[in-house]
Amino acid sequence: MLRSACFVGRQTEHAPRTKVMQHTVSFTLDDKPTAVIVPTNTLLADAAHLAGIDIGQPCGGQGRCGRCAVQVTEGSVKRRSTLRLSPVDIEQGYALACQSIVEGDIAIYVPPQEKIERRLTTDRVVAEVTVPADYEYSFAQTVRRLHLTLNPPSMDDQTDDWARLQTAFRLQHQIERLTCSVGLLRKMGYVLREGDWKVTAIIETNQPADQMTARLIDLRPSHEDEYAPLWGSAIDIGTTTVTLWLVDLVTGQVRAQAAEYNGQIARGEDVVSRIIFAAKNGGGGEMRQRVLETINSLLELACKRVKSPQGKVTPDQVIKATIAGNSTMMHLLLGIPASSIRLSPFITTVNHPPSMTGRDVGLNACPEAVVDCLPGVASYVGADITSGVLSSGLDGAENVTLFLDVGTNGETVLGNRDWLVTCACSAGPAFEGAGVVNGMRATQGAIEEVWINSETLEPTYRVIGGGKPKGICGSGLISLLSEAFITGVVDKGGNVNVAASSSRVREGAHGREYVVAWGHESDSGEDIVITRVDIDNLLRAKAAIYAGFTVLAENVGIPLETTDKVLIGGSFGKYINVEKAVQIGLLPDMDWSRFEFLGNTSVKGAYLALLDWRKRERITEIAKRMTYVELSADNSFYEAFTSALFLPHTDLSKFPSVAEALESKKVDR
Amino acid sequence: MLRSACFVGRQTEHAPRTKVMQHTVSFTLDDKPTAVIVPTNTLLADAAHLAGIDIGQPCGGQGRCGRCAVQVTEGSVKRRSTLRLSPVDIEQGYALACQSIVEGDIAIYVPPQEKIERRLTTDRVVAEVTVPADYEYSFAQTVRRLHLTLNPPSMDDQTDDWARLQTAFRLQHQIERLTCSVGLLRKMGYVLREGDWKVTAIIETNQPADQMTARLIDLRPSHEDEYAPLWGSAIDIGTTTVTLWLVDLVTGQVRAQAAEYNGQIARGEDVVSRIIFAAKNGGGGEMRQRVLETINSLLELACKRVKSPQGKVTPDQVIKATIAGNSTMMHLLLGIPASSIRLSPFITTVNHPPSMTGRDVGLNACPEAVVDCLPGVASYVGADITSGVLSSGLDGAENVTLFLDVGTNGETVLGNRDWLVTCACSAGPAFEGAGVVNGMRATQGAIEEVWINSETLEPTYRVIGGGKPKGICGSGLISLLSEAFITGVVDKGGNVNVAASSSRVREGAHGREYVVAWGHESDSGEDIVITRVDIDNLLRAKAAIYAGFTVLAENVGIPLETTDKVLIGGSFGKYINVEKAVQIGLLPDMDWSRFEFLGNTSVKGAYLALLDWRKRERITEIAKRMTYVELSADNSFYEAFTSALFLPHTDLSKFPSVAEALESKKVDR
Repeated sequence: MLRSACFVGRQTEHAPRTKVMQHTVSFTLDDKPTAVIVPTNTLLADAAHLAGIDIGQPCGGQGRCGRCAVQVTEGSVKRRSTLRLSPVDIEQGYALACQSIVEGDIAIYVPPQEKIERRLTTDRVVAEVTVPADYEYSFAQTVRRLHLTLNPPSMDDQTDDWARLQTAFRLQHQIERLTCSVGLLRKMGYVLREGDWKVTAIIETNQPADQMTARLIDLRPSHEDEYAPLWGSAIDIGTTTVTLWLVDLVTGQVRAQAAEYNGQIARGEDVVSRIIFAAKNGGGGEMRQRVLETINSLLELACKRVKSPQGKVTPDQVIKATIAGNSTMMHLLLGIPASSIRLSPFITTVNHPPSMTGRDVGLNACPEAVVDCLPGVASYVGADITSGVLSSGLDGAENVTLFLDVGTNGETVLGNRDWLVTCACSAGPAFEGAGVVNGMRATQGAIEEVWINSETLEPTYRVIGGGKPKGICGSGLISLLSEAFITGVVDKGGNVNVAASSSRVREGAHGREYVVAWGHESDSGEDIVITRVDIDNLLRAKAAIYAGFTVLAENVGIPLETTDKVLIGGSFGKYINVEKAVQIGLLPDMDWSRFEFLGNTSVKGAYLALLDWRKRERITEIAKRMTYVELSADNSFYEAFTSALFLPHTDLSKFPSVAEALESKKVDR
Repeated sequence: MLRSACFVGRQTEHAPRTKVMQHTVSFTLDDKPTAVIVPTNTLLADAAHLAGIDIGQPCGGQGRCGRCAVQVTEGSVKRRSTLRLSPVDIEQGYALACQSIVEGDIAIYVPPQEKIERRLTTDRVVAEVTVPADYEYSFAQTVRRLHLTLNPPSMDDQTDDWARLQTAFRLQHQIERLTCSVGLLRKMGYVLREGDWKVTAIIETNQPADQMTARLIDLRPSHEDEYAPLWGSAIDIGTTTVTLWLVDLVTGQVRAQAAEYNGQIARGEDVVSRIIFAAKNGGGGEMRQRVLETINSLLELACKRVKSPQGKVTPDQVIKATIAGNSTMMHLLLGIPASSIRLSPFITTVNHPPSMTGRDVGLNACPEAVVDCLPGVASYVGADITSGVLSSGLDGAENVTLFLDVGTNGETVLGNRDWLVTCACSAGPAFEGAGVVNGMRATQGAIEEVWINSETLEPTYRVIGGGKPKGICGSGLISLLSEAFITGVVDKGGNVNVAASSSRVREGAHGREYVVAWGHESDSGEDIVITRVDIDNLLRAKAAIYAGFTVLAENVGIPLETTDKVLIGGSFGKYINVEKAVQIGLLPDMDWSRFEFLGNTSVKGAYLALLDWRKRERITEIAKRMTYVELSADNSFYEAFTSALFLPHTDLSKFPSVAEALESKKVDR
């Protein structure tokens, strides 16, 4: 056999040499060298991966973002694309790792990587949550805690453990049909004997239908205190930020909160980039792993944050989890290929996933925990929106109300208790502090508000938690952009004004920039700036959101001005300054009393659904009732988006209060 | 941190040296040396395991069998027990790996290991199976194949794949409620598009109850031929032998058979040894892995043996499996701790496991395949017996009938269509060719019958498949023992007769032995013998079975002679010679016409249950109806067993035909 293989590959002196050759690729990162040997035509990004070097690919490896640029210091590579590289960059040997092909021995310098996914911070900004006044565990919950006392076996009664337990359920709790996983059978014998035939069972029942059928979730030795917490978790998987609440299902109280960037960011900043990356890299296994790592680390963190008199809380005590997130996030979490979401006619595999277990999903919760992935409406209107509509109360509103979810995707819902229409657009992660050089999440050390003196152009700012600033969060960016615009630091096109007479306006590595905090004031010792590129990202984000709701309102023939209320969801929502948001043209110019900022409506909706099966059923109803308007099929969206790419808008007459402010500032100067 | 650890471990000149030291253990096996470093007090068997050396432990590491003896060639070990080692053995450095403790640097010689679990043979002895005459796939099966044609999605119909599929099920097959695993959701999008919205679904329905509820087992692109096979598997997990049949569920035909020693044998020859080994080694993970490897390799083998015009059959096409086996085998397969089975009051965790999937169990079948582990009765009367009773027809018998399952465990059922009583005893694996020096399974090369000339004491024999003998199978051992007894080669106590004037009777490594085939006649070139130890094992096996059914009959007050029929199950059953079996006292001395040999009744019962839900329900009924008699609580069993440890029995009057045969031989000589 070997011989014939050799024969096939044998070369004569006259035959051309085989083209598949091996090359050495040496990498230098953080002064540490490492090398791998790869065949001709290997993608540089794959070679780096082989060498254990993680090169961020915010656009998912499409060659669009330029963030995976590395420097070829010896040898040369074949460049498929050089988008985002300047001629000087190319002369200096820069190449995009996702677009460059190994053709010979080379040495590569890897610039310090943006470690956005690793900034695990202690969240100080927590949502205030009130337990619904009518919450009554025994009526609202689908999970129950039961005490059972079994007759011990003897030579006269050799009934097996499982049948013995079923009998106790029947006689002591009128449960006739009980199902059980093999995992629970594995520990059943031990638990029954450890508890000396007294045990606590955690079960799931079908509320309100069949009370005689149940599924066993967990079995614990001895009779637990019936008022001890039963742990549940409400989870919102945002494209940029994952938020997790740990809830005591008995009292309904949120006992801990935790949030963190979604670990998938390093492989794409928006949903489309992630879908492309997943499809190119073996169907999404890495994407699934990355978000599971984020969720599981948040779960562990939240457990540690609980101060429970009953002792340490561990993830495996979590017996129920309710998950909201957009449709792409839900597919990637479950390992379901998401390619059809981005290709016309934009179809998900599943909008309403079946009920699953912790084991099915890969959560480090109790293996048999009920995991309820909430239902979405369409490819770009997911469970984050249906749960947001629930928690905002929009579906019960008497008057026409607008609901905006300001996140990486900008979704809009318009309606009242009789009808609901919805649309979506891709805003990008700028408002969550990602895709902005000094952006960060709204945690300790983030600049959350900025004022610029219109004479000196000197800024003052407020930092979350006080102390030295580390970066700028979403509300800070809106505030900064608005102030910069009103004071003339940037013009209506978003250009940093070169004529501004301030040392804070300067030429930086990413084009012109404005310095918000000098190095000696900041936590890292380096200047905190906003650049032309950052401003572009913010403009695109706000334009997409603005275009979304205006086009939707036009579509259904409801003048925007006639909406009773504008409900705004999004993790940074509660801290936004309305005036500033209007000044940059993110929100429509209307009476401020009509705006309501609700914070993360998605995780709130997941929390309500976690607590109460009636709320959970309402989300299903909401998903059924919503009419989805596909903006990609609509030319008017693109027009509205382009018009909104200015500060505040090409048509200033739509923003009379902003026009007035500009006028007054001009007088001031 | 490191520093404090160093400090704790720091030694002063005056302090006693720490007792946990590291030692080098060097092993030599098959002339290949290897070494590991282990701490003081490591068990020698564990050190060998660390070194990647597999030392067989037929008694499960209890120090009872003496089969893990190794030779200490340098240094010394601490011996906890030396049972089964002679003073000469100990002098030569022999030690039991499962009972010896490392105390210093040592060198170990590992004698060649019995590789019983690796004798993967091509089975030539296949059961003849007739498809039940009334088998009609569409009525009898719980699985169905359905064709579906979906409307492709469009911009006007953006319904998700899963909802679209559910609609097709409702409209095209009146299935209102369909459940689906996340695993199937992962491939759903691809399959629907690959099949261009025409697909074949494999579903499980509840027969005969709810036809509107179904579970999705598999989804395949395009419309499959509706007469193409649907693959199922009937599996019997014996303590010694695992048997697997591959069945076309459409026609009901058994299309391939495969059998092999259970891979767990290396860790214990009987169920008690295996339970002990599993409990000592982290709860049975290794035991589960070993039997899964056996089953999965049989599944692959059976698939390869099918000649299907529809192309290659692969294990993942198997959509349903029905498994029979004794209660310990079922627990170990499912990874459920089995310790309570061997401790009074002898309780299983589960007699009737819930319905599971291929993925739950770990079979390399379709991940969502229906896996049905049949119900047992008690710790020592498992699903192998309930399915055996079904396939033997005992539960419908008009007259009192005795059913014997001759395997590693000897189970007996006595009864008719009105009542059933059962008991069990541990026979050991001798009748399956294990625990006997030259024993083997009834495959190609096995001596299946032996005749000994009463004058010359020279044997003649018949080999399965012709050719040179490799060993002796169960029926051959019975035949050999009977002939040796009748001709006086062994006496009634099982001792090899030293006075017999034949070069075939000699002193061997394991005591006195009789040579059945000289090296020049055998396949391996080495003598094939039966030893005193082998005979002891055979005597214990036959005595346990004989004592079991006699005590059971006494218990219910039915004279054995009045039973209408004696049905005999066990893989070697069909090839047994009744006369010989009576002569050694395995079977009662009654009219031969009353014996019926049925072969492996357990796998046959599993096959019937696999095909027909009504047969499956009958097994549940049988399990409920059977009354279990616990022999361990019964002194009369031990007495009956001891009396039966002779050839044919201490009381020859119970075996008049044997007395007559002995008499006639005496006259002959």
